[in-house]
Amino acid sequence: MSNRMWGGRFSEGPDAIMEEINASIDYDKKLYAQDIAGSKAHAAMLAKAGVLTPADAEAIAKGLDQVKAEIEDGRFTFSRALEDIHMNVEARLKEIIGEPAGRLHTARSRNDQVATDFKLWVRDTVDQLHVQLSDLMKALLARAEEHAETVMPGFTHLQSAQPVTFGHHMMAYVEMFERDRTRLVDARKRLNECPLGAAALAGTSFPIDRAMTAGALGFDRPTANSLDSVSDRDFALEVMAAAAIAAVHLSRLAEEIVIWSSAQFHFVRLSDKFSTGSSIMPQKRNPDAAELVRAKSGRIIGDLNGLMIVMKGLPLAYSKDMQEDKEQTFDCLQNFSLVIAAMTGMIRDLAVNPAAMKAAAGSGYSTATDLADWLVRAGGVPFRDAHHITGRIVAIAAEKGIELAEVPLSDMQAVDGRITSDVYDVLTVDDSVRSRTSYGGTSPENVRAMAKVWRDRLGA
Amino acid sequence: MSNRMWGGRFSEGPDAIMEEINASIDYDKKLYAQDIAGSKAHAAMLAKAGVLTPADAEAIAKGLDQVKAEIEDGRFTFSRALEDIHMNVEARLKEIIGEPAGRLHTARSRNDQVATDFKLWVRDTVDQLHVQLSDLMKALLARAEEHAETVMPGFTHLQSAQPVTFGHHMMAYVEMFERDRTRLVDARKRLNECPLGAAALAGTSFPIDRAMTAGALGFDRPTANSLDSVSDRDFALEVMAAAAIAAVHLSRLAEEIVIWSSAQFHFVRLSDKFSTGSSIMPQKRNPDAAELVRAKSGRIIGDLNGLMIVMKGLPLAYSKDMQEDKEQTFDCLQNFSLVIAAMTGMIRDLAVNPAAMKAAAGSGYSTATDLADWLVRAGGVPFRDAHHITGRIVAIAAEKGIELAEVPLSDMQAVDGRITSDVYDVLTVDDSVRSRTSYGGTSPENVRAMAKVWRDRLGA
Amino acid sequence: MSNRMWGGRFSEGPDAIMEEINASIDYDKKLYAQDIAGSKAHAAMLAKAGVLTPADAEAIAKGLDQVKAEIEDGRFTFSRALEDIHMNVEARLKEIIGEPAGRLHTARSRNDQVATDFKLWVRDTVDQLHVQLSDLMKALLARAEEHAETVMPGFTHLQSAQPVTFGHHMMAYVEMFERDRTRLVDARKRLNECPLGAAALAGTSFPIDRAMTAGALGFDRPTANSLDSVSDRDFALEVMAAAAIAAVHLSRLAEEIVIWSSAQFHFVRLSDKFSTGSSIMPQKRNPDAAELVRAKSGRIIGDLNGLMIVMKGLPLAYSKDMQEDKEQTFDCLQNFSLVIAAMTGMIRDLAVNPAAMKAAAGSGYSTATDLADWLVRAGGVPFRDAHHITGRIVAIAAEKGIELAEVPLSDMQAVDGRITSDVYDVLTVDDSVRSRTSYGGTSPENVRAMAKVWRDRLGA
Amino acid sequence: MSNRMWGGRFSEGPDAIMEEINASIDYDKKLYAQDIAGSKAHAAMLAKAGVLTPADAEAIAKGLDQVKAEIEDGRFTFSRALEDIHMNVEARLKEIIGEPAGRLHTARSRNDQVATDFKLWVRDTVDQLHVQLSDLMKALLARAEEHAETVMPGFTHLQSAQPVTFGHHMMAYVEMFERDRTRLVDARKRLNECPLGAAALAGTSFPIDRAMTAGALGFDRPTANSLDSVSDRDFALEVMAAAAIAAVHLSRLAEEIVIWSSAQFHFVRLSDKFSTGSSIMPQKRNPDAAELVRAKSGRIIGDLNGLMIVMKGLPLAYSKDMQEDKEQTFDCLQNFSLVIAAMTGMIRDLAVNPAAMKAAAGSGYSTATDLADWLVRAGGVPFRDAHHITGRIVAIAAEKGIELAEVPLSDMQAVDGRITSDVYDVLTVDDSVRSRTSYGGTSPENVRAMAKVWRDRLGA
Repeated sequence: MSNRMWGGRFSEGPDAIMEEINASIDYDKKLYAQDIAGSKAHAAMLAKAGVLTPADAEAIAKGLDQVKAEIEDGRFTFSRALEDIHMNVEARLKEIIGEPAGRLHTARSRNDQVATDFKLWVRDTVDQLHVQLSDLMKALLARAEEHAETVMPGFTHLQSAQPVTFGHHMMAYVEMFERDRTRLVDARKRLNECPLGAAALAGTSFPIDRAMTAGALGFDRPTANSLDSVSDRDFALEVMAAAAIAAVHLSRLAEEIVIWSSAQFHFVRLSDKFSTGSSIMPQKRNPDAAELVRAKSGRIIGDLNGLMIVMKGLPLAYSKDMQEDKEQTFDCLQNFSLVIAAMTGMIRDLAVNPAAMKAAAGSGYSTATDLADWLVRAGGVPFRDAHHITGRIVAIAAEKGIELAEVPLSDMQAVDGRITSDVYDVLTVDDSVRSRTSYGGTSPENVRAMAKVWRDRLGA
Repeated sequence: MSNRMWGGRFSEGPDAIMEEINASIDYDKKLYAQDIAGSKAHAAMLAKAGVLTPADAEAIAKGLDQVKAEIEDGRFTFSRALEDIHMNVEARLKEIIGEPAGRLHTARSRNDQVATDFKLWVRDTVDQLHVQLSDLMKALLARAEEHAETVMPGFTHLQSAQPVTFGHHMMAYVEMFERDRTRLVDARKRLNECPLGAAALAGTSFPIDRAMTAGALGFDRPTANSLDSVSDRDFALEVMAAAAIAAVHLSRLAEEIVIWSSAQFHFVRLSDKFSTGSSIMPQKRNPDAAELVRAKSGRIIGDLNGLMIVMKGLPLAYSKDMQEDKEQTFDCLQNFSLVIAAMTGMIRDLAVNPAAMKAAAGSGYSTATDLADWLVRAGGVPFRDAHHITGRIVAIAAEKGIELAEVPLSDMQAVDGRITSDVYDVLTVDDSVRSRTSYGGTSPENVRAMAKVWRDRLGA
Repeated sequence: MSNRMWGGRFSEGPDAIMEEINASIDYDKKLYAQDIAGSKAHAAMLAKAGVLTPADAEAIAKGLDQVKAEIEDGRFTFSRALEDIHMNVEARLKEIIGEPAGRLHTARSRNDQVATDFKLWVRDTVDQLHVQLSDLMKALLARAEEHAETVMPGFTHLQSAQPVTFGHHMMAYVEMFERDRTRLVDARKRLNECPLGAAALAGTSFPIDRAMTAGALGFDRPTANSLDSVSDRDFALEVMAAAAIAAVHLSRLAEEIVIWSSAQFHFVRLSDKFSTGSSIMPQKRNPDAAELVRAKSGRIIGDLNGLMIVMKGLPLAYSKDMQEDKEQTFDCLQNFSLVIAAMTGMIRDLAVNPAAMKAAAGSGYSTATDLADWLVRAGGVPFRDAHHITGRIVAIAAEKGIELAEVPLSDMQAVDGRITSDVYDVLTVDDSVRSRTSYGGTSPENVRAMAKVWRDRLGA
Repeated sequence: MSNRMWGGRFSEGPDAIMEEINASIDYDKKLYAQDIAGSKAHAAMLAKAGVLTPADAEAIAKGLDQVKAEIEDGRFTFSRALEDIHMNVEARLKEIIGEPAGRLHTARSRNDQVATDFKLWVRDTVDQLHVQLSDLMKALLARAEEHAETVMPGFTHLQSAQPVTFGHHMMAYVEMFERDRTRLVDARKRLNECPLGAAALAGTSFPIDRAMTAGALGFDRPTANSLDSVSDRDFALEVMAAAAIAAVHLSRLAEEIVIWSSAQFHFVRLSDKFSTGSSIMPQKRNPDAAELVRAKSGRIIGDLNGLMIVMKGLPLAYSKDMQEDKEQTFDCLQNFSLVIAAMTGMIRDLAVNPAAMKAAAGSGYSTATDLADWLVRAGGVPFRDAHHITGRIVAIAAEKGIELAEVPLSDMQAVDGRITSDVYDVLTVDDSVRSRTSYGGTSPENVRAMAKVWRDRLGA
């Protein structure tokens, strides 16, 4: 049962240890497309600036295309001895085109190269996450419209407080994910500056055109300070922070799905696709996907924290510590992508049980606030007094084991003479939700109106 | 040496424990101004909507002004039995104005009230932090202009790599803090929606005008979903995340100041104000303020992480867990404000030692890259080959114990015949930095041009 | 609504900022008792070693007693200008006894002094936490014995899986808190070495007797390396890590209490002491204390993380960063103490609803595993096949809308001929829990036996 | 440059998403040896208990041996459809031995099975880490003995404070790693209880002998509560916490190596094996391995934090969230193993520069404390006064640009008449370190004595 898998290698001595801790190719090969795109843009710019001949530039471009094809066809052999994706690509390029390959690295260094590659990867990922969040919002929106009138308990402290609609609850998450989506938009704008050409850390004396490479790679402009360009990892941290906040939202919804799926709540049922059953307990439907979303949110927060710790206190410009940025960012954003996808699927497939929701909403005097509000509105009673009166009426209902709408008028009037039979218009859960027409309130008409706004905004 | 300070109280039983864990007044009294501003806006709106009489609204407004004055004059007695700032203020209001106080809480609840108060506090703090970051940027800018030509080693791995200017190094931080500043701007836009009127969680049936209260409190609009309004703490998390990323920047600069202040580097000296000395070692000047900035960055990251953990997995809408948001946010943002202030002071007062910097920059063949680049440019040598040739020349210099600019031309030509006497134009550190004129590069003219851009942008 | 509370002070300039960031007296005054105890032990040792005269040592001891009395009587004026507790105490000592006060600091420095004070505080706190955890375990034990036969659903994925007893569930937490308690015991042993006498970092040339001061302060021995003595904060980190793991346990139990308190579960009801009600919804009993325990667990984890970040990467020996150790440790361990106290109170007062638990346990074919096990045991059916057979019988029950014990024998035999009427002996929840007699299983006799073991161990 | 690697799969629909988020075989196959060992022990116990026939048990044991051989020979095809290592192994076992494979899962479930497997893996890893830490301590010890007399500056705030020896500095880390090592020992004792037989969560009605399986797998005893057995992940958290504290130590040493390797300090040089050079700057030797150790410490802390977040607030017993335990634990402990190995190699190979260290130690009046102590000892001057006198003498030295040992006696006596020529015996750095003979102090004889103690303890 020995466990020498990695420990064993170390007994081979320093070389094995250093290769293990130093080589990044095992994970940074994920950046191959970005690395090759960056090199092609760089070569084209060098040719325009007269630093490379057109012939060399063309050879480089063709060679890089071939390297990319080899990687995508699975014909490329990655080498740990060549440490990283940059050297793996360049070494193969040299095999293919010979001497001009040695001219590609003019006026750049690995420091600006890796910053560019990694930034491109983060930007590409942000674009994908944006689409995924939009899909999730559309899924929520569809369920909200479907359930604009479905009454459920609105909880505080997991205690039923006031009735709301399931549609309104779904729309709450649309608001959250919109904030998440705009955070990505803001982060993308801020990161969209190209570090290529910052070279090792000081800039270069070659007459390079950084605006040209920036434009070719879809950046808005080149970065403005070479030291900052190679030492900055804000772009990863900011996107991870946005992911972590969004993951908090996803984990909240996941927690609700887990609780709502319990036999005791019985509000929803996850589809077979997103749950696991038991061969002997057919009624058991474990909400695995929701639990995993909840758990992975913790991991996403952990990754953000981890990279912040790595970056804290590093002197400028590049330190090798920064090589630890990639695995944590990849793990964070790929898991984030995964949990959005899983949640989107769960929401789409969720079987909702309106009867159970309504029954739960109707018990527990959840319209007591409506009674108090009625007293304020109709009777001119100060709110704090209305609260007190309501409490006494609820006590009567509780003693008799009946709901508020079933308390006889005479009993109510015995507590406070200002109460009239009009009060019964506000005491059912349907009355209650319909009355909440203040902006942002839970009334079905509000939910439908807000859903329409979002349908237009999302192009759904 | 017993330590029963808090433990002892608990032996008094459940009441003491519950008061200790439940009462928030010890820290949320910080929100008094926001709470009173919110209540005044709410009362004015209720009056306009006909829910309050003008007389009641006026009594409430005057009473609240008096409460505020009492708090600011130190005449207010905060009560733990009243739990929080909201009840402390309302209870005192009732003592002052009587019955109308009981009408203030109409069409709102503590849930939307605390969300509004806390958001206002965060927004106020963001505004202050923005000013503070601008001040820090101006301080850096002033030092950058002063030292646009001061040559220092540009480090990678804390090894001297290429010469840069101290001004360029300062400007790198201007770029970082600008990103931090715009993150605050983005966060402020996103958070500037008013939750007041969401009531407990479902909205209200009173004919309230949420746009009016939003406007009165400086919000752009009311929040769009009542459930989200009371369960959202994104505004704190996003600002804390921005603070944490900025703190990483501050900790990096702090680390540099600590290292640069060592006897071995001797690049800078902190002023007396920001260091502590030793009564017997007058040469010793501990960079305490820099170390504390570095340390508090860890705490700021810890606070962000802590609040994310608290929020993760909470079902909607309000849970009492969310009361733990305030102390962590206060600790995070107040410490952030403190470290910006400390860093601004340190930068302003920093005594710079250009001679030590230049001496360090000039040793260690830091212009080797310039030689290689010259070979590419003047000799048409492929970069990878130029690297190799340079390495051989550096080896000669190292063997002779001389700097690169001191290697005789004949020795250079023995390594590669394409080398001419023009090469000596690129081998001093001053030559080197002057040559880095690519956009974002370290040349003094670049630094001055970029500083001018920033001077205009900052209105400095 | 301006928020210049702390920002305003900074406009007063560097002095205000430095005092704000540098002075620790606001929080390290908590260490006064430890500081004075350490100084008394040090003075007594110096006298024995002949470094102080007996008269000076006596004057110092008396003076320190007076300082302590002044602090405890609230007559001591703490001064921020004197920075920390050490200088506040020594300065007052000098006022009281004059010149001998200046001899007290011989053969020590603030570095070993603060390490000693802080370690003593952590040790005292560990001792208190140990007692508190024992009290919590006794509370759980009492409820376990009371409910050794109370059947409830055993959940996985918050889905009812198999019946267990509430007593068994309580005992699971006894196991967890015992691990927590022994972690504290281990940490205490490891930390119980005295740093006093390490001086600034190198030891001293005075003929001090470190074993004597160590003994006087209740340490097992002096620390063995002076550099380590002043740079070590493991003792705080290890205790915080133990607290964080324990807080995870507390948060799990808190989450269960929140869920069990919902109207849908209705398994338990928190006492009035630990919940808040609503003046108009008397049935509403918000489990505030449980929610706060759950939330503070996040904060405790955050504090641990924060101090780890502060300590990471600090060169030896003392750096000012380490001053940030105290507030995070105090916050962590005081909140930990608070949540143990709150949980102990909640458990003691918890109203348990056995009827609701049993009803929940009995629904959903929770004894299906018992049927499968019976098939293996009585019929020699391989377990995987038994699973399959059981699934078919459950399907019949589900179709008929009856429980497993109500399925006619003929129906069972139609599925598998090996089934006999003996099977009914295992199909009720009471049968099920009684049958789980394997070591550590949930049977009432097991619970009682295990409770007896713990009662002896805890001396309860 | 599209980035659809994982996003693309999701467009295939729920099945692909669920497989991606749910299947654990990609990483839990690492547990194959532990899984098979557990199954063999379980089968042997079932046979002894009469639940399995001897023939079946033997078939199972042989079959499992074959499965293990297939995995280790690389002939095993892992299937994602079979989700995890347990089902992969059992499915293959069934192919090999047929029906008896279906009897193996009697009286256990995946819940206790995975807890057992994972605990065994953690325990195996702890054993390896213990050996690795011992090796690191031996490496430090060897360097300490070699450099028991090598004087270097003892730093506080990265400012030279008092001279120490490099040997003493190395021994400080021996103390730290010994605490780390004993933390692992304590954790191992605490975790060494066997969960196997807890079954799903309630125990079982089969007459199993849990002590037998516990013994066969090297556990001290079976766990005492079935609910706790399947919901506990303390064993991972505690070991990760120990790893995180140790990683803080490693990061501190790594930070020192990075700083000491700078041209400005020039105290040490990493061997070629653990640094990277530059083809054109041969003097440049980037301390990559030290930087990576420093960075990975951040990741290790992040992993601990991440798993704590995942576990916080989970109700008992098993939730799918707990599946996220493995990747974080593997990442944490494997990186920890890697950084210990890297640090051990670095320490062994480190080239030390005693001349540079001594020169640095001798500058800056680092023996000022020795002068003050001499005044106390020889002149009976109160320490606070001695400090003041020393300050005045250092000021004279600083003014004259000389070291303390070079200040003429007359100048000293002009400051304080009690000074005699004996004072010169304490003013050189060698005198200083030799005089620090208090227990734990830096004197060479102390270092040698302490090294001897450790040599015996480590069997080195």
